[in-house]
Amino acid sequence: MFRTIKNFLALFTGAPQSASRTGLPETLKLIFNRRSCRSFSTDEIAPQDIEAILDAGRFAPSTVNLQTWSFITFDRGQWQQTFGRPIPFKGAYAIVICADRHRLGGLLEDLSGTPAVNMSLAVFNAGLAAMNMNLAAEALGIRSIMLSETGRTGLLDTAFLVEKLNLPEGVLPLTTLVLGRSSMQMPGIPPRQPRDAVVMPQRYNADCPGLLADWFDQMFIGFKIGHPFSNFDRQLAFYRTKMLEAEQAVRRYFGR
Amino acid sequence: MFRTIKNFLALFTGAPQSASRTGLPETLKLIFNRRSCRSFSTDEIAPQDIEAILDAGRFAPSTVNLQTWSFITFDRGQWQQTFGRPIPFKGAYAIVICADRHRLGGLLEDLSGTPAVNMSLAVFNAGLAAMNMNLAAEALGIRSIMLSETGRTGLLDTAFLVEKLNLPEGVLPLTTLVLGRSSMQMPGIPPRQPRDAVVMPQRYNADCPGLLADWFDQMFIGFKIGHPFSNFDRQLAFYRTKMLEAEQAVRRYFGR
Repeated sequence: MFRTIKNFLALFTGAPQSASRTGLPETLKLIFNRRSCRSFSTDEIAPQDIEAILDAGRFAPSTVNLQTWSFITFDRGQWQQTFGRPIPFKGAYAIVICADRHRLGGLLEDLSGTPAVNMSLAVFNAGLAAMNMNLAAEALGIRSIMLSETGRTGLLDTAFLVEKLNLPEGVLPLTTLVLGRSSMQMPGIPPRQPRDAVVMPQRYNADCPGLLADWFDQMFIGFKIGHPFSNFDRQLAFYRTKMLEAEQAVRRYFGR
Repeated sequence: MFRTIKNFLALFTGAPQSASRTGLPETLKLIFNRRSCRSFSTDEIAPQDIEAILDAGRFAPSTVNLQTWSFITFDRGQWQQTFGRPIPFKGAYAIVICADRHRLGGLLEDLSGTPAVNMSLAVFNAGLAAMNMNLAAEALGIRSIMLSETGRTGLLDTAFLVEKLNLPEGVLPLTTLVLGRSSMQMPGIPPRQPRDAVVMPQRYNADCPGLLADWFDQMFIGFKIGHPFSNFDRQLAFYRTKMLEAEQAVRRYFGR
């Protein structure tokens, strides 16, 4: 109980140390202060801003510069037409970010036979591109959220998205980046695991799992506050069902 | 032959369109102009800069805020001690970025049984963190490169790194981010695949592989210029051998 109160206070009294540093370059400020937005206005995003965001993804680094990603784009009408509902959280624009080892298939046949290696690199590279797009949006004053589940938008709905978006073999949908304008006050930074659990000098820190108790409490408290009428265990059970469903579809990408 | 000359000129006469735009926010400039650095000075990096770069990784977004990454850090002495050689390209500091689904294992047992889903999300999230660290370094005037193979530094040397860094089951080394100072003139931006091959409105563009011929020529020409005494096919064969070796080690992370 004492620990719960302590972690409740930790969650709501202090911005994490790093975010409150002064004199940081603009890019570091964006990195430390970005938030996921869950409520967008009806405003549209200017086409040149969308183009800059997509180009930020295209200009990400990648293993041997192979650019193993695809970005499937939707304005409000296109999303409604495809999925029969609005973009989640009423976003103005959505980008389904995929790892793509299909496009290069014809050029680099020699590199077949290693699906787990190829797909791991493609997923990692798609993460690089996604972060670039997210930060590009922040720099342009555009809010965003990366979705994995809400509204059938990411990896947990691989089979569904493969069918809806006509994805060929080797194209794995990872997340949907939802973009839009918002004047909402952003919530606090979700709790970070302690530095010693994550940053490890010279070799893996075998004690790291034991350092997470406070962080896990904070996550639990944060969930209760954000979802006062939801049940944490039921939410976990929901995720578990989705993940078990997705497992077969996803595993095929990494080997027979 | 005509196409080769055209692509040679494309590679060396114009910076890609996006990079030359004016009036962009600082973060977009960094995104469009970042380069991989392959030659570092003997200068060290200030501890507070290293801390800011690592925190940029820790503050990346992640699926359900689970922060499924680990950063194993090395100064010059620690790298030498561990690997018996200097940091590649004489970098001042190195961070082995891992996808980590070990650390949460004790807290979220319910989510076992779905290794391909869990690991895919962990790899994607590690990509988000890696890009944040890369851009944080750029913002601080520190150069970097993300390595996958040179000097046994990433995914292609999974088995080696598991042993050297004492990585437990579920911790997959993806890349090494090498950091340092450099006064070298940076080379041009490696050729980007055309926008229409990567950005696809509303559904997957089945024609995208056919749009890559010019890009592939440019990559080939770039390789020949950067490695005048190397053989492209021999380099491909080398990668192929490494990837086949790595495949078994990597595949185990995604299922039995």
